[in-house]
Amino acid sequence: MASTSHTDYPPELTAEEQNFIFTELKDWSIAHGLAVRPAPSFVQQSQDPSGVLATTAPVTVFPSLFPRTCFEDGLSIQRAYNELYSAIARDEQWLQGIVEELVDVDDFVAKLWQTHLAVKKEGYVQDVSLGLFRSDYMVHEDPSQSNPAPGLKQVEFNTIASSFGGLSSQVSALHRYLLSLGAYPSSTSSIIKADALRQSQSTSQLARGLAAGHKAYGESRTRRPLCVLFVVQDPERNVFDQRHLEYALLEENGVRSFRLPFGRTLEHTKLDGNRTLVYSPPHSSSTSYEVTTIYFRAGYSPDDYVKEEDWAARLHLEKSRAIKCPSVLTQLAGCKKVQQVLATPQSPHLKRFLPDDQVASRLLETFAPIYPLDNSNAGKEAKKLATDPSSAARFVLKPQREGGGNNIYRKAIPPFLEKLPETQWPAYILMEMIEPPPLRNAIIRNGVLERGGVICELGVYGVCLWRDGSGKNQKGEILENFDAGYLLRTKGDQSEEGGVAAGFGAVDSCCLVES
Amino acid sequence: MASTSHTDYPPELTAEEQNFIFTELKDWSIAHGLAVRPAPSFVQQSQDPSGVLATTAPVTVFPSLFPRTCFEDGLSIQRAYNELYSAIARDEQWLQGIVEELVDVDDFVAKLWQTHLAVKKEGYVQDVSLGLFRSDYMVHEDPSQSNPAPGLKQVEFNTIASSFGGLSSQVSALHRYLLSLGAYPSSTSSIIKADALRQSQSTSQLARGLAAGHKAYGESRTRRPLCVLFVVQDPERNVFDQRHLEYALLEENGVRSFRLPFGRTLEHTKLDGNRTLVYSPPHSSSTSYEVTTIYFRAGYSPDDYVKEEDWAARLHLEKSRAIKCPSVLTQLAGCKKVQQVLATPQSPHLKRFLPDDQVASRLLETFAPIYPLDNSNAGKEAKKLATDPSSAARFVLKPQREGGGNNIYRKAIPPFLEKLPETQWPAYILMEMIEPPPLRNAIIRNGVLERGGVICELGVYGVCLWRDGSGKNQKGEILENFDAGYLLRTKGDQSEEGGVAAGFGAVDSCCLVES
Repeated sequence: MASTSHTDYPPELTAEEQNFIFTELKDWSIAHGLAVRPAPSFVQQSQDPSGVLATTAPVTVFPSLFPRTCFEDGLSIQRAYNELYSAIARDEQWLQGIVEELVDVDDFVAKLWQTHLAVKKEGYVQDVSLGLFRSDYMVHEDPSQSNPAPGLKQVEFNTIASSFGGLSSQVSALHRYLLSLGAYPSSTSSIIKADALRQSQSTSQLARGLAAGHKAYGESRTRRPLCVLFVVQDPERNVFDQRHLEYALLEENGVRSFRLPFGRTLEHTKLDGNRTLVYSPPHSSSTSYEVTTIYFRAGYSPDDYVKEEDWAARLHLEKSRAIKCPSVLTQLAGCKKVQQVLATPQSPHLKRFLPDDQVASRLLETFAPIYPLDNSNAGKEAKKLATDPSSAARFVLKPQREGGGNNIYRKAIPPFLEKLPETQWPAYILMEMIEPPPLRNAIIRNGVLERGGVICELGVYGVCLWRDGSGKNQKGEILENFDAGYLLRTKGDQSEEGGVAAGFGAVDSCCLVES
Repeated sequence: MASTSHTDYPPELTAEEQNFIFTELKDWSIAHGLAVRPAPSFVQQSQDPSGVLATTAPVTVFPSLFPRTCFEDGLSIQRAYNELYSAIARDEQWLQGIVEELVDVDDFVAKLWQTHLAVKKEGYVQDVSLGLFRSDYMVHEDPSQSNPAPGLKQVEFNTIASSFGGLSSQVSALHRYLLSLGAYPSSTSSIIKADALRQSQSTSQLARGLAAGHKAYGESRTRRPLCVLFVVQDPERNVFDQRHLEYALLEENGVRSFRLPFGRTLEHTKLDGNRTLVYSPPHSSSTSYEVTTIYFRAGYSPDDYVKEEDWAARLHLEKSRAIKCPSVLTQLAGCKKVQQVLATPQSPHLKRFLPDDQVASRLLETFAPIYPLDNSNAGKEAKKLATDPSSAARFVLKPQREGGGNNIYRKAIPPFLEKLPETQWPAYILMEMIEPPPLRNAIIRNGVLERGGVICELGVYGVCLWRDGSGKNQKGEILENFDAGYLLRTKGDQSEEGGVAAGFGAVDSCCLVES
């Protein structure tokens, strides 16, 4: 396994080696759109008011080592995960139970649920839903075992705005390019090999997913040209990630798309009589488009809803006939509470959605035990574990809310909970820490190269298109279900001073090793 | 013709149209490497010491109108031009006559010739030469005619470091993309059409040319891996232009290349016993490569030779067994004096190189009359024309030297010559001004959009690979000869205040119109 047999990976680089690889990397990345708009700390807006500057996206210099069995596990169970989450999204009654436990503590979940109820009151007019999912994992080596076999443990399951698919294809191609140049020291030749570098087809596959939604929508009801609508944040530094999907949608699938800043939704779209969503591009007032599919790259976090009108905009989109990627129910299916109830030890829920025991047991193996902090039996056990510093050291406390950040780790948990009124504890879940093998890499960010210990997170993309149940077919049906490439995201592990800055991720690719 | 029937092209854009097109353009360009490193006036080196920032290359928003017949003429005569210039490069005796007229006034030409003589003394060991040429034209409408038919007139013929081939493919793809989005106002729909937008295959075709050189070199004589060597300036802001050729060389032709700053030639290359050129990459001291082909993207201008050692480096490369792109004789074939003697009225020279009258007469039509400023009959006539303000207004005075800039236009010629000792006049040629039709466009540079009158220059790329004459075959033979895409370069015409800044070119593409 990586942690034991490749302790000297990646090798130190001489100054000339580093200079060569850095130059190749920074030129290739811009030539191939592996780029981001620079952060304000790097380039102030006043210097570049029209925003034409770009820089290499934060990337790793080397592909990180990843156990081949874990990688293949992750890809092979993605279709089951797609099935699971689409089944959850179709089970309004069950979701209601989840939401009811959260409404008092999570205003965002409450608002999303109210949006669903408001649409339901008028009646949904679109029974097809699209999910571009990403299931995130870390490699886990059980510290209680002396020679542990590495396994995948799920960190979270994203049902909305799963990002980096457009850049992931490029970074795996970058590492392959560097290999083909012989840019990696010869000491790595038994590790970094062409058949070990797994290319990610995420750009093409996610675009294919959007095209599947577009096609499933059918013909225009208003004799307008059809389009997919990317609902985005504005400004968006990670714009090229999204653009690659747009370009692949157009070039590989012939499907037109537009970008609409979420805050301008009500200004530029309207619902006609039968709730067809009509988009009027501001630059072309004479031509309007009928929207087949709404792809949300905004609206996933409370921060995107700054005024009441933003909730009206979400409702407006949700009410429309366009296929939502995702619908509000699918977004709710991705909330951490769902992950928690599935992963609570002895939970009966998984069986509800995946009757096939074999399939369910394969997913179950990827769950890290998760506890609620409520008054259930599991919750009571969790409170004991979380408030005792010695047991808390094996856990992480995560807010149920979406959006990342704000996790409380290990020994910081007891004092954090001490300050928090116990009524608010159910807003958090307690998750057993995943113990990844120690890895090292070098990350380039803003032109600076940092080396040190890193943690890698594997994201497996999945596309699922389904029809909600109704009438005789209460369970609905799955129309498309495929895995859609992968992302490896790598960040500093905080373990070393002067190493890779913690918390800032870089895009990476997998160099598969036998475990 | 463009000048008469499309006077309102391109149309004014509304603020929303302009905003849309600008956003699409700046994102697409970075996603596809239509980029440059920013100028120091935009980003200072201290802000980005490792040089990771990039920006959209200066580009036109619209494809410029170009007469279809002229465009097709330019492409169809490129093979004849390739043949002409390769024949000149093979005719040492004739070139010697040219050079002898220049040695006293042009130190750079003298140095190049001395380099040739030094190699000749030891004997050339490589009889194959490669040219990646670019013939530059403007559309000319004879102002003395009331309804002139547009014709192509040659501005210059580049035999070394013909640039922008890597970006030209991208800008024609950009304009096609903008068309496919409907980003251009509907009023242009009868003009900007898919079959009017000519895509440039320059990246692929120039890479194919380098690969042909690489292949013609044959097998390694030193059992080393083979490579093409890009000899470059350092730093190079236009690096992505060159990188696209490198990537196409590797991906489409499987040929490895390296970049070597010209100033480090002697440090990193050596000649072995039989003058094989061996390149030792500084990052990989254990592996050295045998160079098949030297592609000069530096060394074309006196500015590249700052110290005597730089001339030693050029000689070192020239002596080697590697195929030169171009050889020093081929570089000399491109000097303006050659263009001038070919284009001097009643010149006998063209026939020497192109015995086929039909072919020669087609080229002749693209020559703008060019006069020497010496004591020949044509020279005497020229001096009269150049010193009289009324006739001088139809001419441009150009230094024979390579490198661009420093042209003297029209009425500025007489006072310029008055200050220059007449012995130095032969360093210049007098060329009849080409009178292009008035055109307009919008150029984006450093994030700023400028509209106004523009001048367009069509560059047609050509690849020629030949073997020098020897023994029975005194004339040598042509091994490869093909046209290799095009470049349209557009700059402000100085005619309007507040318009497009004069002198700064942007990459553009051709929207063909019937003349």
